[in-house]
Amino acid sequence: MELSARNSLKGKVKNVKSGTVMAELTVKVDAGTVTAAITDASRERMKLKEGDEVSVVIKATEVMIAKG
Amino acid sequence: MELSARNSLKGKVKNVKSGTVMAELTVKVDAGTVTAAITDASRERMKLKEGDEVSVVIKATEVMIAKG
Amino acid sequence: MELSARNSLKGKVKNVKSGTVMAELTVKVDAGTVTAAITDASRERMKLKEGDEVSVVIKATEVMIAKG
Amino acid sequence: MELSARNSLKGKVKNVKSGTVMAELTVKVDAGTVTAAITDASRERMKLKEGDEVSVVIKATEVMIAKG
Amino acid sequence: MELSARNSLKGKVKNVKSGTVMAELTVKVDAGTVTAAITDASRERMKLKEGDEVSVVIKATEVMIAKG
Amino acid sequence: MELSARNSLKGKVKNVKSGTVMAELTVKVDAGTVTAAITDASRERMKLKEGDEVSVVIKATEVMIAKG
Repeated sequence: MELSARNSLKGKVKNVKSGTVMAELTVKVDAGTVTAAITDASRERMKLKEGDEVSVVIKATEVMIAKG
Repeated sequence: MELSARNSLKGKVKNVKSGTVMAELTVKVDAGTVTAAITDASRERMKLKEGDEVSVVIKATEVMIAKG
Repeated sequence: MELSARNSLKGKVKNVKSGTVMAELTVKVDAGTVTAAITDASRERMKLKEGDEVSVVIKATEVMIAKG
Repeated sequence: MELSARNSLKGKVKNVKSGTVMAELTVKVDAGTVTAAITDASRERMKLKEGDEVSVVIKATEVMIAKG
Repeated sequence: MELSARNSLKGKVKNVKSGTVMAELTVKVDAGTVTAAITDASRERMKLKEGDEVSVVIKATEVMIAKG
Repeated sequence: MELSARNSLKGKVKNVKSGTVMAELTVKVDAGTVTAAITDASRERMKLKEGDEVSVVIKATEVMIAKG
């Protein structure tokens, strides 16, 4: 499957926090950390847990630029 | 200024494409390449150009996880 | 590849409009018509054109509910 | 009221999950299911419950395309 | 029609910029100026033009907080 | 630091609701109220509380227009 979302960075899940509706995953990527807030149902369906090799995927229209 | 958006990765602008309303910036970060679609008016206001040291900033609720 | 984005509806591309930075795809799904604004670079990379069998994919945090 | 968000699909609420801040609604649309993560305060204000006839509404810039 | 998106601020369209796929509307609200990037097809369908009384509508999950 | 996100409205935090993963902040801006759903970890990191002077920041691609 090919996805139109342009940005994909490989990493490893460092932490999982699970709430009633939402879950937070902290993913270690090269030179930084990316936090994802997804539904807890997706976390469960994908059995996401610490140590998993994953990619963080982000649509280009969601990316901002900071400078200075 | 501190921003609630959790994710910030430092990089360098590799390419700028400018349209009537939107602009696309390709940013080289340590973990790969991130493409941002922002308004062209923001590109102009921030004078963003190839070679600029910037950060890509992403709200956690916009990040997806892919596996396998 | 499995993706955390929950919503995926199968359909067929009915129309493609291509701008400098962005592209608009109209996709006929069983439940109606869905319009996607993606980068034109993604349209080109995926060679998306009229008649293609695709899925529209949407993160749950991006979905609103209207009533009445 | 007319809204710029292009995509609107009619359906029926099949399930409601309510957390402290967020709520998850599963909506049955023609030939599929759409999950929405909205604030629980919106769920309460709109008195959303199983069986409600609703529309799922999605801004075009939030829609991705998957192929293959 | 009631919409789950929580945030709605009334204002007046001050400027419209129209591209091939996207359009940019600048809206003067009491609290300042809000810029919206919507599809140009939505601008056309709603016949949006300078001087129109509109509301800017934003889903709570899209709002960030800055401090300091 | 300069940010590409175009929209920034000054206000004062009126209410904070804290969940396991997400937090909801209600911010009073001129002539209205804006609700933000951010991660609770960001709320904690920024020590956001009632009475804080903040800005709500919104990317232009996330803003919709309603009319009539």
